[in-house]
Amino acid sequence: MSLFTRTIVKKRDGGALTEGEIGDFVRGVTDGAIPDEQTAALLMAICCRGMTTQETAWLTDAMMRSGETWDLSRHGFVADKHSTGGVGDKVTLVLAPLIAACGVKTGMMSGRGLGHTGGTLDKLESIPGFRTALPREAFDRLLDTVGCALIGQTERVAPADRRIYALRDVTGTVESIPLITASILSKKLATGAHAVAFDVKTGNGAFMAKTEDAEALGRAMLDTTRATGRKATTHLTAMDRPLGAAAGNANEVEESIRSLRGEGPADLKEVTFLLATDLLLAAGAATDAAAARRQLEAAIGSGKALERFERVIEAQGGDPRVCADPRRLAQPVARRDVPAPSAGTVTGMRTRELGLLAIEIGCGRARQDDVIDPASGLRFLKKTGDRVARGDVLCVLELGPLARPSSDYLERVAACFELGEGPARPLPLLVKTL
Amino acid sequence: MSLFTRTIVKKRDGGALTEGEIGDFVRGVTDGAIPDEQTAALLMAICCRGMTTQETAWLTDAMMRSGETWDLSRHGFVADKHSTGGVGDKVTLVLAPLIAACGVKTGMMSGRGLGHTGGTLDKLESIPGFRTALPREAFDRLLDTVGCALIGQTERVAPADRRIYALRDVTGTVESIPLITASILSKKLATGAHAVAFDVKTGNGAFMAKTEDAEALGRAMLDTTRATGRKATTHLTAMDRPLGAAAGNANEVEESIRSLRGEGPADLKEVTFLLATDLLLAAGAATDAAAARRQLEAAIGSGKALERFERVIEAQGGDPRVCADPRRLAQPVARRDVPAPSAGTVTGMRTRELGLLAIEIGCGRARQDDVIDPASGLRFLKKTGDRVARGDVLCVLELGPLARPSSDYLERVAACFELGEGPARPLPLLVKTL
Repeated sequence: MSLFTRTIVKKRDGGALTEGEIGDFVRGVTDGAIPDEQTAALLMAICCRGMTTQETAWLTDAMMRSGETWDLSRHGFVADKHSTGGVGDKVTLVLAPLIAACGVKTGMMSGRGLGHTGGTLDKLESIPGFRTALPREAFDRLLDTVGCALIGQTERVAPADRRIYALRDVTGTVESIPLITASILSKKLATGAHAVAFDVKTGNGAFMAKTEDAEALGRAMLDTTRATGRKATTHLTAMDRPLGAAAGNANEVEESIRSLRGEGPADLKEVTFLLATDLLLAAGAATDAAAARRQLEAAIGSGKALERFERVIEAQGGDPRVCADPRRLAQPVARRDVPAPSAGTVTGMRTRELGLLAIEIGCGRARQDDVIDPASGLRFLKKTGDRVARGDVLCVLELGPLARPSSDYLERVAACFELGEGPARPLPLLVKTL
Repeated sequence: MSLFTRTIVKKRDGGALTEGEIGDFVRGVTDGAIPDEQTAALLMAICCRGMTTQETAWLTDAMMRSGETWDLSRHGFVADKHSTGGVGDKVTLVLAPLIAACGVKTGMMSGRGLGHTGGTLDKLESIPGFRTALPREAFDRLLDTVGCALIGQTERVAPADRRIYALRDVTGTVESIPLITASILSKKLATGAHAVAFDVKTGNGAFMAKTEDAEALGRAMLDTTRATGRKATTHLTAMDRPLGAAAGNANEVEESIRSLRGEGPADLKEVTFLLATDLLLAAGAATDAAAARRQLEAAIGSGKALERFERVIEAQGGDPRVCADPRRLAQPVARRDVPAPSAGTVTGMRTRELGLLAIEIGCGRARQDDVIDPASGLRFLKKTGDRVARGDVLCVLELGPLARPSSDYLERVAACFELGEGPARPLPLLVKTL
């Protein structure tokens, strides 16, 4: 029996792996010495048997060290945030320039849309000219000049994660809290932020639909991040309905610009302020939460937050005029109303299905080589809890030039709105703070 | 998510797979449509979550149907036996000609040594000229002419098992009762026997060291075989010491010949008679166990059993004169005594280690391309329960021309004999009949 087979058998039988065994695994995956079938077997054993907090921390650390690790100490304090993803979650686009305007540098390496969820990079790239494929040097320069860097993952950071992730996708080993934690944190921690605010989504549009699963993931991320000496906070927030009123790419940028102007939806503001407050406190930029909120309000009210977003866009090659004139963003070529088939209360929204429907009209990729249509999206005119009359518009479908919705598309969007008489019982927006 | 990923996730979450899902898996493995990493993930999920009797039966059936299935009905009744393997287990060599001499045809497809255990094919091939790589047609002809066929696995029988087995070996998924059951039975049942006697070994020289694991495997094999309409019996027998006094290849053939002459070790005779009785009863060749035993004794006493072995050897290309003159078998070029380092009782034997030590002197293969030295082996002069004086010979090491034992080899063999004062508590030879 090979040494690595022994490691697989140990985990299969419920044992805890040592730091050395985990390190050998990650090294073997990174350099290709361990064949995919052995990696797949260990990943499934981890799915079935779990990992202790200590094993998860060692796995995160080994995956982080499989590539470059960035030391941002010359920038002083750098903040980061992470959301586990959902529909309409554009918090990064608002939060990053907002806290930068409050004097807190923020450097984030974001991802693409995954499954039914949108991706921060895809949204940013709907701004004409905006570039996210930037190297480490650009990241440093952006922190120096505008105090905010919003870049995509580079091949040099956590290469082990890329290999493991590709295998997890086809081997049914995505849903594992230790593996999700190590995947997220190996990238987060490699890029050197000093504090991370975690937004763990829960509800029918989240990867962790059940609150107890979301809490377990949030706890694992919190503990593992703190174990590295970084500051971290974790909130569980509602994803049983979309966040804000827009889901798509250009339309989410537009909603973010409105939010930076103080005219955005209340739920988006609440989640953004929750995480931004944590980061201002972690940075020592505010003495308490009330003071932090005042600073955030002032940055918006004074126009400094939006102005910072203009500077960020310009620094990353984009057209900053979108902030003053959002019609410069890609515009839909057609709109279709989705009317309510009956009167009643919106008692619930099938959020995951709405995310998948958005992908069908070009908001994301069903396959890796699909092309995104930045102008496509959904606008939610009604959300959970709203009363509607028959024929009221629930949702407006925005179709970009590439969008080819199927004939039953409107019906399927309408079916995502559950109409009834009983009162709606949505999750509280802030479900829990860990 | 691909269809097959859904199957993996279902098993990962503890679900029972359908006949269609199992069939698609086996077809995909056989034709290469399912990549190894996906197969490995499903195998690990099966290891961790188990399979119901019904799933195991479907898996066995699908693996059996991945290649040729033989219809032996024109031969009337054909018997088979299967042992889960151990050290010194030469039962097939005695049983097959013995029951053939009693008028019960027996057709067996045997395997090579695996891990620390010896293999029937390796033992048979130590008879000069004996051929086991025979096609289906030869199998039929041997059943017609000598009523006994002892062949090796062909590529055409259960090809899915070969692919799955190769993966299990490197992915830590060998120890799974449903997978072991399906692997054994897919081959056994494909070759068409009408009754199978299972000998499931237990004790420190068995793959299933714990009796409860052996019983679970035995039960699974029994139920699955009976579900196909075949007759089956299962005994758990002791493998906490070697069976008989010889472990090797030529020396096991010699011991088998002595047994067919009525001069073999008592334990080997007891296990052989146990299984042979079952098969005579299944064939309707005897009305009760006592009558069956009388027939078996008579076949040995009359010389017919040994004569049948001569005919079998000749029909398969071997030199039948070994039966009258076993010195025609490969002979060791040197012998070394292993003396008892102290007086006492042999309270136990490290059987698995003895099997591994036998491989070191050429009785088996540590790697696939290792060459077997048929003349090498171990002779046990003392076994569990025997009293010994200091210096008494515990074991004789027989070295063939290829054997190169390491300098501490004798010591390591001696260390496999546990000497103490307390009474030995070996397992009863027949641990349990299911």
